Amino acid sequence: MRNIDLLISARWILPIAPENTVLENYALAVNKDKIIDLLPLDAAKEQYYAEQYLEFPDHVIMPGLVNSHTHTPMNLFRGLADDLPLMDWLNNHIWPAEGALINAESVRAGTQLAIAEMLRGGTTCFNDNYFFPDITASAAIETGMRVVAGNVIMSVPTKWAADEAGYFTRAEAILRDFTPHPLVTWTITPHAPYTVSDDSFKKVREISEKHNLPVHLHLHETSFECEQSAKEFGVRPIARLQKLGLINEKLIAVHMVDVNAQEMEVIAKAGASVVHCPESNLKLASGFAPVAEYLKHGINVALGTDGAASNNDLDMFGELRTAAMIAKAVSSNPTSVPAHEALKMATLNGAKAIGLGDKIGSLEKNKQADFIAIDLSSYLTQPIFNPLSSLAYAANRLQVSDVWIAGKRLLKNGEFTRLDTKKIVAEAKVWAEKAREFEA
Amino acid sequence: MRNIDLLISARWILPIAPENTVLENYALAVNKDKIIDLLPLDAAKEQYYAEQYLEFPDHVIMPGLVNSHTHTPMNLFRGLADDLPLMDWLNNHIWPAEGALINAESVRAGTQLAIAEMLRGGTTCFNDNYFFPDITASAAIETGMRVVAGNVIMSVPTKWAADEAGYFTRAEAILRDFTPHPLVTWTITPHAPYTVSDDSFKKVREISEKHNLPVHLHLHETSFECEQSAKEFGVRPIARLQKLGLINEKLIAVHMVDVNAQEMEVIAKAGASVVHCPESNLKLASGFAPVAEYLKHGINVALGTDGAASNNDLDMFGELRTAAMIAKAVSSNPTSVPAHEALKMATLNGAKAIGLGDKIGSLEKNKQADFIAIDLSSYLTQPIFNPLSSLAYAANRLQVSDVWIAGKRLLKNGEFTRLDTKKIVAEAKVWAEKAREFEA
Repeated sequence: MRNIDLLISARWILPIAPENTVLENYALAVNKDKIIDLLPLDAAKEQYYAEQYLEFPDHVIMPGLVNSHTHTPMNLFRGLADDLPLMDWLNNHIWPAEGALINAESVRAGTQLAIAEMLRGGTTCFNDNYFFPDITASAAIETGMRVVAGNVIMSVPTKWAADEAGYFTRAEAILRDFTPHPLVTWTITPHAPYTVSDDSFKKVREISEKHNLPVHLHLHETSFECEQSAKEFGVRPIARLQKLGLINEKLIAVHMVDVNAQEMEVIAKAGASVVHCPESNLKLASGFAPVAEYLKHGINVALGTDGAASNNDLDMFGELRTAAMIAKAVSSNPTSVPAHEALKMATLNGAKAIGLGDKIGSLEKNKQADFIAIDLSSYLTQPIFNPLSSLAYAANRLQVSDVWIAGKRLLKNGEFTRLDTKKIVAEAKVWAEKAREFEA
Repeated sequence: MRNIDLLISARWILPIAPENTVLENYALAVNKDKIIDLLPLDAAKEQYYAEQYLEFPDHVIMPGLVNSHTHTPMNLFRGLADDLPLMDWLNNHIWPAEGALINAESVRAGTQLAIAEMLRGGTTCFNDNYFFPDITASAAIETGMRVVAGNVIMSVPTKWAADEAGYFTRAEAILRDFTPHPLVTWTITPHAPYTVSDDSFKKVREISEKHNLPVHLHLHETSFECEQSAKEFGVRPIARLQKLGLINEKLIAVHMVDVNAQEMEVIAKAGASVVHCPESNLKLASGFAPVAEYLKHGINVALGTDGAASNNDLDMFGELRTAAMIAKAVSSNPTSVPAHEALKMATLNGAKAIGLGDKIGSLEKNKQADFIAIDLSSYLTQPIFNPLSSLAYAANRLQVSDVWIAGKRLLKNGEFTRLDTKKIVAEAKVWAEKAREFEA
């Protein structure tokens, strides 16, 4: 008998790897921050003496969801401006509000609000893209959340930096000075092809290589972006970035809505990952990413909610459902992105995309103990014929009952163990009030 | 001072009519089953002495949602078969399961399960399309739910009837014998153009006129349906039905995915209503209904979830969000179907479509007291800049706290006042077990 911290049995365990597999009468063995075993319950009881044994008789246990594209501080701007043309939304509402209100305090408040929302709905890791990423990383550490924080580079002046050189200075300082923490990793994050110069993209590549960092980039989000690039640079963004050496396995290419067959080949060959943000693409009328095609090409497709100003929730169960549904209609094929594939996109594919494929995203020995329980006993999801289908097509994120990250239980029977949501909402309201005054 | 049953104030009241209006410091006055007033709170306190006064300080009060296309007994088959081609799904899973298992008892069990789900999420009326509609109507009466029950006509034999003549006999018996009840109205419900003969469509028209009934029909759901009709009848279904006199203001045309410009004109001129079921259309890969075009033509567009076997939930907040989002991407216009329009589609437009436009769907004097409260204080929806946006793009259906139908409070602070969901789930499980055995 080996002494361990935690043994968990559940009605169903969904390890994600191997693919499309549901285990019954199994148990997950956890010690400290790690998964140390996944085995039949009978064998588990013989092999392990657990300090805590938990049974989840009506639940699925699965890896925590990985939200592969967020702007968490923008939770403060949820619903600030909707149903507007993209450039009106950005130029007249979002960017001015950001310019006036974004600082270390508001970023902390917005990130905490977003973390509460994400944890409640089963997200255990997020790949963020915003100013003051050190503050976002600190907020994640405080709350027990796992984060991949992005060091934004762009030519647009903000309170974070005045020009491209300033953004690089900020990025280099963070990469040098931020005290390493097991819940935090980093990306280098050029904002988008239309806001970053060729010289800066070259420097991004150097930093990516030097620090072994993924490159987190909005890419081919709209046809307008591609047309503008063709006018300004003579080629579409993917071709431009290919010349600059950035289309490689480190690239996290977010959105990828307007992509032709040749570009798809380039992405597939390079081993880059795509982050699909279906609800943001729909709401901003950007269009429909060709997800079924990406999967046919063997491209790793992850999922992201984007920011709360363009979605307007950070609900990964909702997002994976939308992804599964629209892929079918876009490809005229109801077998596209079946339930198990959508669940993998929201977990293991995300982990791979953001450089954590060996650490999280599946319930495998030696991976981090980042996992969630979803209670399917409600009349909202009954009856159950196939728990994968129930999770993908019917479960409400509030049916997530428990969340563990690195072996720590952050949500217990639907209640937070650490977060004070009253305080978080009160702080968010203060910033929203300022945004409201600013809008008026 | 007039004595009344109930006076309700809320942070926001959204009457739906007039359009795009949010009232603050207002109160809703209810007596017996009716709304008798909607007025400033100060005036309300002077004019009415209410037996019960309720304050909803963090809530929106709005009309109950109208689910304009359901097959409620199919909640028993939620997730029975997913991610399959349409004909495989129908021929090898759904129809055989229905053939084996559908009877008065299973219809009652499935309808109750669906009613629990709908009530919890703020739906107060549903337009059903299934066999044993008298049982569905009785289940609605027992639970306090409002229903428009459909008398199905088709050529496919089922346990309900052996042939078209048999379905008409059933329909006529129900229209003659069912004891009238204020919560129940009826439609005549030819299943679809491909399952109903010309003679039967003529008879449907006669019954519609004789009893003043809406005609509830799946129409132009897929391109395949339209092509088959062109082969068999020489014209697409709308043209065929026009000849048969069925394209008129009584028609509830469900799905309407493959519709050309000329057909749209025909529908608009006739004053027929369209029921858009976006999630079912996506999941079955039927395609994208041209909703922004319908609205431009002045067509009344309502929303439906379709059955739980093809969605797989009956979540009208989810459905209206999907409708608002995909309309933007399909029309390449982020201003298409703004929040207030989506909320109207899910309420007043639904009421109009199903023949109850003067009775429900908005908070107006003399309408039925069918209304709901949604608590927006959660960190899931904070901050609030515009409650319409919060409802349409962020609210979770479990934030519905209270539901009234005909002045009766059926959900109170998130708990049912009448329904025993444990019993309902236990009964559903018995039928699911039979379906599972049958599938195996």
